[in-house]
Amino acid sequence: MEQNYVIGLDYGSDSARAVVVETTTGKTIATSVCYYPRWSKGLYCNPSINQYRQHPQDYIDALVATVRGALEQCPEGTGEKVVGIAFDTTGSTPCFTDRTGTPLALLPQFAENPNAMFVLWKDHTAVKEAAEINRLSHSWEIDYTAYEGGIYSSEWYWAKALHVLREDEDVRRAAYSIIEHCEWMPALLTGVNQARDIVRSRCACGHKAMWHPKWGGLPSEEFLTTLDPLLAGFRDRLFSETQTADQPVGHLTREWAERLGLTTRVVVAGGAFDCHMGAVGAGITPHTFVRVIGTSTCDIMISSYEEIGDRLIHGICGQVDGSVIPGMIGLEAGQSGFGDVYAWFKRLLEYPLKQILSLSTALDEETKARLIAETAEQIIPSLTAEAEKIPVEESSVLATDWMNGRRTPDANQMLKGTVTNITLGTTAPRFFRALVEATAFGGKAIVERFRNEGVRIDNVIGIGGIALKSPFVMQTLSDVLDMPVKVCNTDQACALGAAMFAATAAGIYPTVEKASETMNSGFAKEYEPNPANARKYQELYQNYLRLGKMTEEESF
Amino acid sequence: MEQNYVIGLDYGSDSARAVVVETTTGKTIATSVCYYPRWSKGLYCNPSINQYRQHPQDYIDALVATVRGALEQCPEGTGEKVVGIAFDTTGSTPCFTDRTGTPLALLPQFAENPNAMFVLWKDHTAVKEAAEINRLSHSWEIDYTAYEGGIYSSEWYWAKALHVLREDEDVRRAAYSIIEHCEWMPALLTGVNQARDIVRSRCACGHKAMWHPKWGGLPSEEFLTTLDPLLAGFRDRLFSETQTADQPVGHLTREWAERLGLTTRVVVAGGAFDCHMGAVGAGITPHTFVRVIGTSTCDIMISSYEEIGDRLIHGICGQVDGSVIPGMIGLEAGQSGFGDVYAWFKRLLEYPLKQILSLSTALDEETKARLIAETAEQIIPSLTAEAEKIPVEESSVLATDWMNGRRTPDANQMLKGTVTNITLGTTAPRFFRALVEATAFGGKAIVERFRNEGVRIDNVIGIGGIALKSPFVMQTLSDVLDMPVKVCNTDQACALGAAMFAATAAGIYPTVEKASETMNSGFAKEYEPNPANARKYQELYQNYLRLGKMTEEESF
Repeated sequence: MEQNYVIGLDYGSDSARAVVVETTTGKTIATSVCYYPRWSKGLYCNPSINQYRQHPQDYIDALVATVRGALEQCPEGTGEKVVGIAFDTTGSTPCFTDRTGTPLALLPQFAENPNAMFVLWKDHTAVKEAAEINRLSHSWEIDYTAYEGGIYSSEWYWAKALHVLREDEDVRRAAYSIIEHCEWMPALLTGVNQARDIVRSRCACGHKAMWHPKWGGLPSEEFLTTLDPLLAGFRDRLFSETQTADQPVGHLTREWAERLGLTTRVVVAGGAFDCHMGAVGAGITPHTFVRVIGTSTCDIMISSYEEIGDRLIHGICGQVDGSVIPGMIGLEAGQSGFGDVYAWFKRLLEYPLKQILSLSTALDEETKARLIAETAEQIIPSLTAEAEKIPVEESSVLATDWMNGRRTPDANQMLKGTVTNITLGTTAPRFFRALVEATAFGGKAIVERFRNEGVRIDNVIGIGGIALKSPFVMQTLSDVLDMPVKVCNTDQACALGAAMFAATAAGIYPTVEKASETMNSGFAKEYEPNPANARKYQELYQNYLRLGKMTEEESF
Repeated sequence: MEQNYVIGLDYGSDSARAVVVETTTGKTIATSVCYYPRWSKGLYCNPSINQYRQHPQDYIDALVATVRGALEQCPEGTGEKVVGIAFDTTGSTPCFTDRTGTPLALLPQFAENPNAMFVLWKDHTAVKEAAEINRLSHSWEIDYTAYEGGIYSSEWYWAKALHVLREDEDVRRAAYSIIEHCEWMPALLTGVNQARDIVRSRCACGHKAMWHPKWGGLPSEEFLTTLDPLLAGFRDRLFSETQTADQPVGHLTREWAERLGLTTRVVVAGGAFDCHMGAVGAGITPHTFVRVIGTSTCDIMISSYEEIGDRLIHGICGQVDGSVIPGMIGLEAGQSGFGDVYAWFKRLLEYPLKQILSLSTALDEETKARLIAETAEQIIPSLTAEAEKIPVEESSVLATDWMNGRRTPDANQMLKGTVTNITLGTTAPRFFRALVEATAFGGKAIVERFRNEGVRIDNVIGIGGIALKSPFVMQTLSDVLDMPVKVCNTDQACALGAAMFAATAAGIYPTVEKASETMNSGFAKEYEPNPANARKYQELYQNYLRLGKMTEEESF
């Protein structure tokens, strides 16, 4: 049997990557990364007001560059053996389109207008609109936020759409529909030319657009127009049905087949968010807690109707039938800060380094700059090496991990971080260890919430930068959770997950579970909890909870 | 009228200094400092168990060096015009003596025995004995700790004496009496040769030896022998009377007059602790809160019988009639950590600097070492410059100042420091500002305690290193206290205070108040509270109290 290939495309915050994967083995034979050219220059963004917009042309440029780039690494003729392609992207990253489903910024008159572009997940310009949505929804006869954790975020679909409509009269006049980034890529490649024909992502719509079958899809027109009359008419022009990402959206158009060096036989799968496809790429099964660990974490679980039925899992980030694996309920949670907490401490410690620049010591500027950069690079490795040797202790430094607020359990973006039990003898490695323990405790709080809500968790899989890079962090996580923690043998679990969806949509596998069983990368490492540490952490975790409760109840 | 001179000697933890002062003006015409030679080499100490001992010969060597050194800077013949000399020292810093009042370590057989030396104030080897004293005293018919704040410390007289007796059989056999450092210096210079003839310091005995007229002097023999039979007999051999430091102890012996280049006409005043004489040197008057601000603070107030009568001021470090100004009640309080809290943060930030040593960058070791030292020196000045510009804000970083426990109000050495409201945007200067505010809040907590106990406070005088060096810290203190804060125009307030006692004992002034009125150094600077900041700090102080209460009630 001839080997076929699928292409998985993973669109992250700063760059996109394409992997070419063997369908029979899951082996990645080529990877290509492209940083978004306009985004890299800081265009269309204003960090001072947390405005982060991405130009659709960046996505197109990255698509061509990565697919072409990956195929160039492959044997001659590989392009012709590609049978499927799938996309995962960040989200909620929506954009207004015209009647043809074209993102407005691709039209000449909107080419430089940030409001006509994709509003990146971390854009926080719609804080006010999110608050209005929460107020209205919580007093409405139906709480449309129920399946999205009960608290609508400024990072999501309707808040962003409403904010842009209010901000920009030109966009308002031209806006016909709204599209998520993960929906646009398949629509683009399959030649959709009517907004109404766009295949909608179950994952994106269920987790971010308040879409749920229980209330017939999107929130009612009355709800939306009560929120703001500017939203009138959108509901009808948008969608009532959504599709899981294992289903085909269509085939590559001739034009796109040519541009990418593929054929029109290629099946394009539905799109979904990166962490959701990443969880599949990591080999998610029921009772497995998959953590995508980077600056923050996105935690994914799947559960059956038998396990949780129609019950609401309180205080998580959403539960959507089919958002991860079709036929299972996808559950999303996460910590607002994880690697970012360590990065904060690193920045703090970097403070004296910049003083070196102003020293009179006779060193040229270049030497100073190199010295600073090299020293800064040593901070986390050196803290890690020393922190690792410190025994687990009670009455030692204790921290909460809320330096960027708390996403789960029970979202509260107003919370802040605390460090207590500081003595004059508290060293930087001890402080760092407390932060590592705090991020692990934050993970345990999520696990405990799932369990208390009736979702069984037996083991943990970690993917993402920190999972692969820091054995100390992962061992601490295992000790605190008192569970084995496995780390995937790939740094491209999301793209690999997309490849699994592509293979399923192309009919190579009957289900994504089957694709995942065969195509997964295996595990690079498995951490087993140290029983003595796990016992001590049981007690320390109670202290973490008490410290958290105290600082949450009081407001300083 | 010919100008007379007095010499003030201030014995600190690491060094002693002598000042030669004009009696009519208070002008210091010479200063000489000497570091203790044996102490500087780390002899007789064991930091790992907090054992800190000082050899009496160090004190003698420093005496000769500083007095000779100071006189050498003066016009020919100044030595003959010196009319008085006085000492302040650290305390409680006791030592066992033989029957002649000679510290045991000056006898050949004890010359190298740390248990025969002065036990420096910060020696913590007697933690167990302090706990026993507290237990027994709190259950005794008389609570002998009542005038010492209600909690006896391991840093004090009886705890240390008992610890040494238990530890060292040789010392136990030879020990006849116990002497405080500030008592020994006058005894030495005036030729006391019977332990029973030593003039006892009101300040030392009242604040640290549980001496009080109410119970007839020292604790009863029954109390002491119940504590430990090893203490039997000491009470009778020690003392029942004490003397304030304005009273003469005697005149210089011929031998000492010759060794120091002085005359036998020189009157030697009584001794007292450094902060108490420092408060007089700073110009203390009733309703003035004098803060000796260094690594920690020692805070001194004086109050009249009219104001507080025989009432106990709860939760301070002691109240002793005449310990500061004869006829007034001296009140002592303080923060366990002040400059030490900033030093902790500096050490934390220095962490990456040591990484420079292991970098491959082609710099020689000497250049690296110089670079590290110069950079480290910039940390506090640079933090200060940036922190100063940050406006007073609510919901910003908030800290407690208990990194070294809490001395006042309500001593609790088990407490630890906390920093809360940390976000990913919390910079090192903002963190530092929170620490500076915390130390100021800690000062306010002491002021409030005095006020609640009926002791009026109208203004503040700061002396010590930080008072002179950091306008930012002093302005913050003024804003938080909402009171003017004056800083003495001398970095030798303690030695100057000793000179005032010398002048009084020598009969130049009828009282130390009169001496202080004329001989004080005036003020280098006066900080006025910024009304807007003071208002904001009223609210922030409430948050500090709540954070403190929380972390005190919970134990992590």
